[in-house]
Amino acid sequence: MHVLIIGAAGMVGRRLTAKLLESGMAAGKKITAMTLQDVVTPAYPEGAPFPVVVAKGDVSTPGEAERLIAARPDLIFHLAAVVSGEAEEDFDKGYRINFDGTRFLFDAVRLAGYCPRVVFTSSIAVFGAPFPDVIGDEFFSTPLTSYGTQKAVGELLLADYTRRGIFDGVGIRLPTIVVRPGKPNKAASGFFSNIIREPLAGLPAVLPVSRDVVHWMASPRSAAGFLLHAAEIDGAAIGPRRNLTMPGLAISVGEMIEALGAVAGPERVALIKETPDETIKAIVAGWPRTFDATRAKDLGFVAETSFEDIIRAHIEDEGIVL
Amino acid sequence: MHVLIIGAAGMVGRRLTAKLLESGMAAGKKITAMTLQDVVTPAYPEGAPFPVVVAKGDVSTPGEAERLIAARPDLIFHLAAVVSGEAEEDFDKGYRINFDGTRFLFDAVRLAGYCPRVVFTSSIAVFGAPFPDVIGDEFFSTPLTSYGTQKAVGELLLADYTRRGIFDGVGIRLPTIVVRPGKPNKAASGFFSNIIREPLAGLPAVLPVSRDVVHWMASPRSAAGFLLHAAEIDGAAIGPRRNLTMPGLAISVGEMIEALGAVAGPERVALIKETPDETIKAIVAGWPRTFDATRAKDLGFVAETSFEDIIRAHIEDEGIVL
Repeated sequence: MHVLIIGAAGMVGRRLTAKLLESGMAAGKKITAMTLQDVVTPAYPEGAPFPVVVAKGDVSTPGEAERLIAARPDLIFHLAAVVSGEAEEDFDKGYRINFDGTRFLFDAVRLAGYCPRVVFTSSIAVFGAPFPDVIGDEFFSTPLTSYGTQKAVGELLLADYTRRGIFDGVGIRLPTIVVRPGKPNKAASGFFSNIIREPLAGLPAVLPVSRDVVHWMASPRSAAGFLLHAAEIDGAAIGPRRNLTMPGLAISVGEMIEALGAVAGPERVALIKETPDETIKAIVAGWPRTFDATRAKDLGFVAETSFEDIIRAHIEDEGIVL
Repeated sequence: MHVLIIGAAGMVGRRLTAKLLESGMAAGKKITAMTLQDVVTPAYPEGAPFPVVVAKGDVSTPGEAERLIAARPDLIFHLAAVVSGEAEEDFDKGYRINFDGTRFLFDAVRLAGYCPRVVFTSSIAVFGAPFPDVIGDEFFSTPLTSYGTQKAVGELLLADYTRRGIFDGVGIRLPTIVVRPGKPNKAASGFFSNIIREPLAGLPAVLPVSRDVVHWMASPRSAAGFLLHAAEIDGAAIGPRRNLTMPGLAISVGEMIEALGAVAGPERVALIKETPDETIKAIVAGWPRTFDATRAKDLGFVAETSFEDIIRAHIEDEGIVL
């Protein structure tokens, strides 16, 4: 089992890599080789029990996808993407990487003439307001960002290429990933992580929205788990509708903060400062809140069901000492 | 008002051209120039009250879209497409014309830096079985053909380019167009037209499915009407969800035949021979049957509400003498 991860240097890619190294298995089979690729060279994993190649490259550069596919990896994780804010600011870059890059990869597999499992990370950004109270598995994709549009196009291609037997694809729409490790960033969604991560590190954090804002979340640990499950799931059980909204937790900011207090105490909660930001409030108001994700749950995808579990996953995975 | 029709030589393109020549108006304005383009040279319309250019070309050829956009047409109808069966048989051709061609056109407008109205013909093929009894305006696009996939991608791009102010797009999902003029063709949907057109011409026709098959139809006259209305409708009234399922008539084959009898008499009905074809039956079983099309109706799109009207439209428009 040769595993290729495109976008291996990102938060989800690194966690997925770690999980695969830990178990030595993917889709129920022993891993015999691994290729880690990204636009920045992924860290070389020391002590891997199988050969690992790390490669720097951009899948939207003509020829790069063919080079990656030449070794005929059995399992391909396509995680590479320009994020939402950047795809909105830079039209060309977003369409080049998220749209052309995905198509180049899919076509490289087509022209190679073999049928690997391809796991593609999509996003709840394929949905656009107005929403029903709970977004069902048959709700339509009317994205309100170029990023969401590019992901929705990737989903359509994935389903068609799978239907035609070109590869065996699974698209997974990730919830917002919380708690993101690292430094606070300027993403409009950053505060969902900041208000937990920073207080746990003894640092202040800014809450720019009201406490009744509800959002759809899962931990980085769950995200890696979704990818591993998507790699091993029986394609026939999925059927032709190959893109699945992943399970998550619909929770309000107020409940997130309560959970922080329950896990880490009121002095951590006191580090959160409410500083309303009308721009962020307006952006967040257009985001989906609650999904039913019945199909994914029925197919065995599992996420946290309490925010305290999400906080504890962060504490364990990042080795935080309170 | 300079009008460009890409795909002008097709059945719908010709009817649209005729309507525009007849009224001399589009989107409430006087037409001052018209460009008719297709992969076969469109017929030059004699006696046009404004200059007409007919052009042979393929919008998926690099540079062709730029050439068409150089004159900055105010209103662009993008009807050019490889049909469903051909896109399924010829992967490269389908993706080249329906996917790349559409993107090339949209990008040519983007790079030209002005904001015309773009009317794009999509299809109910963006939907894939299983279906609810009535397909609502928020049902998702999970096409089961490459043609449907390519149309769904065009819809996504149209909405995103419109949202970004690149152009002012309207996508219209056409029902199956009945009664198609001309000769019987091999399309699986051909019999819906054949069983009306051929008997009206005094010729025999084959019915390959059972009489209880229900399908979603509109006349060629309605299709041209949808395009003209899509050209003039206020973009703000549509909102960001730019792709609309057109109204149509959900009717069974049995009811179609009854209507034929009512309009043209039992001797015409007697020309229909029932010869079940299991392949066609299976294909048709996967097609959508009934839509509510509420959004389009609320926006003023109008279709026939009786199949007798569809037959009479055919008789009038084709100048048939019974």
